[in-house]
Amino acid sequence: MLKLQQYTITLPPFPQGLHLITEYVKQAIEPLPKEGLLHLFLQHTSAALTINESYDPDVRKDLEAALKRLVPESEDLYVHLVEGLDDAPAHVKTALIGVQLWIPIRNHALALGRWQGIYLWEFRKNAYARTIIATIIAAY
Amino acid sequence: MLKLQQYTITLPPFPQGLHLITEYVKQAIEPLPKEGLLHLFLQHTSAALTINESYDPDVRKDLEAALKRLVPESEDLYVHLVEGLDDAPAHVKTALIGVQLWIPIRNHALALGRWQGIYLWEFRKNAYARTIIATIIAAY
Amino acid sequence: MLKLQQYTITLPPFPQGLHLITEYVKQAIEPLPKEGLLHLFLQHTSAALTINESYDPDVRKDLEAALKRLVPESEDLYVHLVEGLDDAPAHVKTALIGVQLWIPIRNHALALGRWQGIYLWEFRKNAYARTIIATIIAAY
Repeated sequence: MLKLQQYTITLPPFPQGLHLITEYVKQAIEPLPKEGLLHLFLQHTSAALTINESYDPDVRKDLEAALKRLVPESEDLYVHLVEGLDDAPAHVKTALIGVQLWIPIRNHALALGRWQGIYLWEFRKNAYARTIIATIIAAY
Repeated sequence: MLKLQQYTITLPPFPQGLHLITEYVKQAIEPLPKEGLLHLFLQHTSAALTINESYDPDVRKDLEAALKRLVPESEDLYVHLVEGLDDAPAHVKTALIGVQLWIPIRNHALALGRWQGIYLWEFRKNAYARTIIATIIAAY
Repeated sequence: MLKLQQYTITLPPFPQGLHLITEYVKQAIEPLPKEGLLHLFLQHTSAALTINESYDPDVRKDLEAALKRLVPESEDLYVHLVEGLDDAPAHVKTALIGVQLWIPIRNHALALGRWQGIYLWEFRKNAYARTIIATIIAAY
């Protein structure tokens, strides 16, 4: 029979950029059921969750640089400037990357591919703590 | 015990741009179960669903302008022009933003963050009504 | 009562670009339950899953060209070059498009909109086979 279980994960403030949070997530939700699905939902509008290459730190630099090229922090491009020049671009990046992920659970582990890791992508320069609501659907 | 419940939500035609639909969605699915998850699936290829800042309308202007900068409605950039100059760019925007969302349900309410709202992002200039399939997974 | 069922779908190597995989997916998971949800999770960091217009092949050309304009394969833009010039841009595209989809199941069929199809978007030029973990949640 399926059950649903919810957790709140609080992440410490991170600098602008990509931060591997796979271990934070695992610690909050382990032990995992044999088979199921994990949902991660970030309750914010200026950061994102994404799954990407976790091995080479250069990939993070390329991702950060590429997204800044697409959505530059330039004063003349945005109307909403009251919360700082990085705020409007942060909302655009959130729309492009997204605030949620689902990951299958298999054999009591997250069924990530060999190179996949879970990232918090922080778009603000002076960010505060971030909250994730995690939900597991599984046969318990 | 978990149950699954499906609803069809029909949205009226909206002009090109971002439209807050949190209230439309709530009205279609309330009362909500104590704990669970809501899935929203837009059955279209030239509009998107996204979660973003719901407070300052200027953010919507910035999002719309930023996405139009990334995917301009310029005749010389696309092959598929038979359905109007806004159609091919609409498909590209749909790929970038996505057609579905999941939102956790907690204490009989959508567990959105303080500034988060649900948006229909309409990419066509003369759009028709849009259909969302909503599914709730919860203990009833 | 809800049950959860998992499948592994192995896709053959595809050339760089968009490939309609709706039939591959259906064959792997049919017969479908009456009502439920299907999750598709791609275990890779240089390809993506997306839902878009399945009718006119020109749309695929426009999508591919638009994403290459946004994330060009240019040597001077990336640090991570050891795996080929198409690798760093592939990771950026994966972040923008995403590696997972959910599709509602209704009346024993995928509840896709009239023009929607499921695509594997291959970002590498010499890609290998790709693995999808499919999970169905449904009343059996």
